[in-house]
Amino acid sequence: MNKVAIIGVGHTKFGKLEDKNLLDLLCDASLQAIENSNTNDKDFDAVYVSCMLAETLNHMTGIASALVDRIGLIPAAADHIKNGPASGGSAIKNAFYAITSGLCDMVLVAGAEKMTHITTPGSITSAIATITHHNAERIHGISLPSLGGLLTRSYMEKYNVPKEWITSIAVKNHKNGMNNPNAHFQKEITLEKALNSPIIADPLRLYDTCPVSDGGAAMVLCSAEMAKRFCDTPILITGVGQATDTHIVYEREDLTVLKALQICSKQAYNMAKKTPIDIDVAELHDAFTILEVVESEDIGFFKKGEGAKAAFDGITQIGGKIPINPSGGLKARGHPLGATGIAQVIELVWQLQNEAGKRQVQNAQTGITCNFGGFGNNIVSILVERM
Amino acid sequence: MNKVAIIGVGHTKFGKLEDKNLLDLLCDASLQAIENSNTNDKDFDAVYVSCMLAETLNHMTGIASALVDRIGLIPAAADHIKNGPASGGSAIKNAFYAITSGLCDMVLVAGAEKMTHITTPGSITSAIATITHHNAERIHGISLPSLGGLLTRSYMEKYNVPKEWITSIAVKNHKNGMNNPNAHFQKEITLEKALNSPIIADPLRLYDTCPVSDGGAAMVLCSAEMAKRFCDTPILITGVGQATDTHIVYEREDLTVLKALQICSKQAYNMAKKTPIDIDVAELHDAFTILEVVESEDIGFFKKGEGAKAAFDGITQIGGKIPINPSGGLKARGHPLGATGIAQVIELVWQLQNEAGKRQVQNAQTGITCNFGGFGNNIVSILVERM
Repeated sequence: MNKVAIIGVGHTKFGKLEDKNLLDLLCDASLQAIENSNTNDKDFDAVYVSCMLAETLNHMTGIASALVDRIGLIPAAADHIKNGPASGGSAIKNAFYAITSGLCDMVLVAGAEKMTHITTPGSITSAIATITHHNAERIHGISLPSLGGLLTRSYMEKYNVPKEWITSIAVKNHKNGMNNPNAHFQKEITLEKALNSPIIADPLRLYDTCPVSDGGAAMVLCSAEMAKRFCDTPILITGVGQATDTHIVYEREDLTVLKALQICSKQAYNMAKKTPIDIDVAELHDAFTILEVVESEDIGFFKKGEGAKAAFDGITQIGGKIPINPSGGLKARGHPLGATGIAQVIELVWQLQNEAGKRQVQNAQTGITCNFGGFGNNIVSILVERM
Repeated sequence: MNKVAIIGVGHTKFGKLEDKNLLDLLCDASLQAIENSNTNDKDFDAVYVSCMLAETLNHMTGIASALVDRIGLIPAAADHIKNGPASGGSAIKNAFYAITSGLCDMVLVAGAEKMTHITTPGSITSAIATITHHNAERIHGISLPSLGGLLTRSYMEKYNVPKEWITSIAVKNHKNGMNNPNAHFQKEITLEKALNSPIIADPLRLYDTCPVSDGGAAMVLCSAEMAKRFCDTPILITGVGQATDTHIVYEREDLTVLKALQICSKQAYNMAKKTPIDIDVAELHDAFTILEVVESEDIGFFKKGEGAKAAFDGITQIGGKIPINPSGGLKARGHPLGATGIAQVIELVWQLQNEAGKRQVQNAQTGITCNFGGFGNNIVSILVERM
């Protein structure tokens, strides 16, 4: 099996980008990644594009083919990979397979979402809610934030956890985002302000949720044996996992357990021959603050019920025992759906290359992601290491 | 590199299926394929789903995760692969990579489209036209049938070909569809009737175009070394190719040449160590009659300009030198977009297993497909052989 290296990354600013359309975002991130990779000949075998809502929000299909043409990569094979908000993780996974198979040497992965031009209230939430179960959830008005509220309440009651422990994650991630020039929000917030922000789905409040963002992220992958030709500090993808769970959330034995994450992170750890204790830095999918809590447990950092306390106690801060979301996470970096899974891995690349500036985690050698699709019914986990 | 075998296939009726929704079609085809494969334990590593317009026509995202849950394959990894009308080919390609990488042993590929419930005139054509170039084509009213008309006229003029040679393909494919119980249309048509059918985009007429269909198709793939455990007559995928071309059709040097097909079919031939002369049967993407003509040339069966005459002379009939679309093709089997690329390979499986009934091509040992995305800007070609 060929080993796979990341040799270049590209990341647009995330936020409200009025002068960019979906294809612009894919192109900007891709061209940055290609330039960063020093692969001057652009001899790509394949391109994988991740985007959740191109049809609905942008009235576009065939975006992978369009990208390949616009950045001059014809005749590279091009596919659009969809797995809801975990589309980026899935795109990386399939690029990883393409290279490990030995059939592709050089692959571009690019993800983007263009969302902020949609201003009708509720329409973004409705578009994302197409991923819930139609008969059991959606027609009854269930949206992802409402499931986030339900999970927050269940967790608080089951583990007797005060809301401020959970919401402290928003404060941490905003603080980290301060030092990320690509972040949607680059300002600190106070716990008091977050706890008193408007209710979205009780007890979930505005500052417990990620924003709607535009943005693009891209990376160049190649076989590890070629990597040093292009890049002094390639980062290896050594573990990849993906698992599904019930579509209908109420069918799960325990709402506060993300079985798909337990399974897929174990796949990634096993492939890389690592355990949670080996991880120096993680990028988790904090679309809602409660998700970072639960994910930090199910990915193996904390026992069930102890994630919120750990965050409140600073264990997941930069400088803490296991820094989570030094990028600012979805909460502060922003959440352009199709870009998020790629941006998570890019942050780890920068951390492992010691290129993360003021948000650097010291001596980070190994990192892992959780990219969360649906409401936890399709999760991708990617483990990266210094070469 | 692991070799890849097809050990089970499933294919719903194609046509106007009023009592089935998109997920029903995916499930029906998948359960058939799983049953056909004798993999009783359902121990699947991954599921790939192809569908072009789930968001627009069916208001669904996360269809791969939904399928996995509904047919009991949790926690299998699940991704939705999009490449316009070539989504099925792309899904098979990515499943092929997953197995050749050695990281997956057993993979389900399922494709479907549910279209006929949309009855507003032009809305299906508009939805599909989202794959054309927005600024250069779409805003000027260009749709896929209009490009089909342009290609037909260009070909007729360049090669001095009468329309009846091209339209004879519709007659052939309807005749083949007569013997395909899954076909949308199972009735013969006359050349005279086809030539006098209503104009769609001059000189393209109604009977030169495929219908709008509902339908699903699925297959189970596994590593070749496992295949004989499940199936007496597994079929090997020995060649896979995919290539892109310009998004804007007018930017191509010659409208009548499908460069992407020339490239991707060559990739498939080279991988399988075959040439066009080795092919016993082909399933090409006759969304318009002219496409079968041009594809039959660019996939290497005929010189440029000779494909229409060859079809008119019966060379591509069952019993001819190189039978094309014994299934009835998109014209008669129908064209549920996301299912088509999978249905093409399934027809070849049946032909190679000598299971094609009245439409059997005698002693078929090797077959190839052309699955055409966009207007030829992203084409997938898959070559299969008896084991």
